[in-house]
Amino acid sequence: MSDFPEQDVWLAHRVSYGETDAMSVLYYAEYLHLFERSRNEYIRSNGITYKEVEAKGFFAPVRRAECRYRRPVRYDDQIWVRAAINRWGRASFNFVYEIYNLDKSFVHADGSTEHALVNREGRPVPVPDWFRAAFK
Amino acid sequence: MSDFPEQDVWLAHRVSYGETDAMSVLYYAEYLHLFERSRNEYIRSNGITYKEVEAKGFFAPVRRAECRYRRPVRYDDQIWVRAAINRWGRASFNFVYEIYNLDKSFVHADGSTEHALVNREGRPVPVPDWFRAAFK
Amino acid sequence: MSDFPEQDVWLAHRVSYGETDAMSVLYYAEYLHLFERSRNEYIRSNGITYKEVEAKGFFAPVRRAECRYRRPVRYDDQIWVRAAINRWGRASFNFVYEIYNLDKSFVHADGSTEHALVNREGRPVPVPDWFRAAFK
Amino acid sequence: MSDFPEQDVWLAHRVSYGETDAMSVLYYAEYLHLFERSRNEYIRSNGITYKEVEAKGFFAPVRRAECRYRRPVRYDDQIWVRAAINRWGRASFNFVYEIYNLDKSFVHADGSTEHALVNREGRPVPVPDWFRAAFK
Repeated sequence: MSDFPEQDVWLAHRVSYGETDAMSVLYYAEYLHLFERSRNEYIRSNGITYKEVEAKGFFAPVRRAECRYRRPVRYDDQIWVRAAINRWGRASFNFVYEIYNLDKSFVHADGSTEHALVNREGRPVPVPDWFRAAFK
Repeated sequence: MSDFPEQDVWLAHRVSYGETDAMSVLYYAEYLHLFERSRNEYIRSNGITYKEVEAKGFFAPVRRAECRYRRPVRYDDQIWVRAAINRWGRASFNFVYEIYNLDKSFVHADGSTEHALVNREGRPVPVPDWFRAAFK
Repeated sequence: MSDFPEQDVWLAHRVSYGETDAMSVLYYAEYLHLFERSRNEYIRSNGITYKEVEAKGFFAPVRRAECRYRRPVRYDDQIWVRAAINRWGRASFNFVYEIYNLDKSFVHADGSTEHALVNREGRPVPVPDWFRAAFK
Repeated sequence: MSDFPEQDVWLAHRVSYGETDAMSVLYYAEYLHLFERSRNEYIRSNGITYKEVEAKGFFAPVRRAECRYRRPVRYDDQIWVRAAINRWGRASFNFVYEIYNLDKSFVHADGSTEHALVNREGRPVPVPDWFRAAFK
């Protein structure tokens, strides 16, 4: 997709039996697990881990998730999960995702998640400079 | 929600440990499992089961799913999952969902799924009369 | 089974698509989720909930789990999960489980879990009288 | 473990949020998913894939699974899953597993699975020579 953010990360994944369903394809809820894995990698690739973010007292719960399923993924398929932050709010940010086949010739699915940034008490907090700076 | 279809179904659910995550809340992908459970119940409550639909050679893969997470659900919470079909296309239909707390005083989450209707070969097929009639 | 403890609980469950795999059967790890659901119900049926046990500062992590898979369970099957405590140690206890078909004419699977009882620091603690008394 | 088969495979894995539970540790059923991933890798590392085995008309359902949980695994932990076949029957075989921390200094868990070999109709079939030869 031409409008995918340039600063992205690609996570390799192989589909296990446990992720498939009786239609012999990757179950639709499993895509959200893959999105989570890829955004963890995205954060890590920018020099901090989400675990460290939490240790500093910041949490990024998902407020909204969406996925479009374009071509099914099957058992043992090797796929790529691409992730990037594409929008910053005052106390929030959004991730976008694309799932590609092994040679990246087509898209299996794409989606997005919207995150609030909250403190330990669950109250929204402005995105701190060090957090945003990590992704510049 | 005032615009939720009148012909709905309510599925009771209790959250297990296995559905929670390290934030001590229902993991965001688990909502899609609950949506699936509730739409199975919706179809069943209308006199047919999705399993029978498949036996007739019709399949309803998810083309898009969305969920808005409004208030977290915790371990051992009893919740209600409400489901209904809110739109019919020529070869497709949409479900909407709401997840309520036990006394139905607030909404934990709401969402939707868009389904194609396809045959065994995966090709779109018009919604048959007997299928649509079941939900009238 | 003739040697299943008399004081048991039966949990009804219907298998969703999300619990199946590409072999069209209940995925083998899902049985442990069902075991967990049934032991929660067992504890609840004895007048206390595991959530309350945790609130008192006691935790019961699984030290060992085992399952024997005898006859596959399929999508939309209604099954029964039977659970009971069958052994008490000084700082531990064991659960046993059986999964039956709808009319309870055969066993799909059986298994067991061994639990330690630990405090918030993860150290083993003797089973308190009030806990054991609940199951008499 | 001194008696682990010499011909083994090691699969690297990083624990995601979706695999943890409200105790902030890897949920006990998730270990069976990891066992499956590692035995897929074991088969693949021997020159054939389980998918190809299935395409030839052979299936290896799990008849029994067991796991011993020794030290908890936490969110974002990098772990190693070790797998090997340790026993051959006429129409069956067994896998053993160990889960290690990143520097392989201790064992988080170990376990085993027993597999039947069956044909498309689900009937036991003797282990074919080409299958067993692959693991020599």
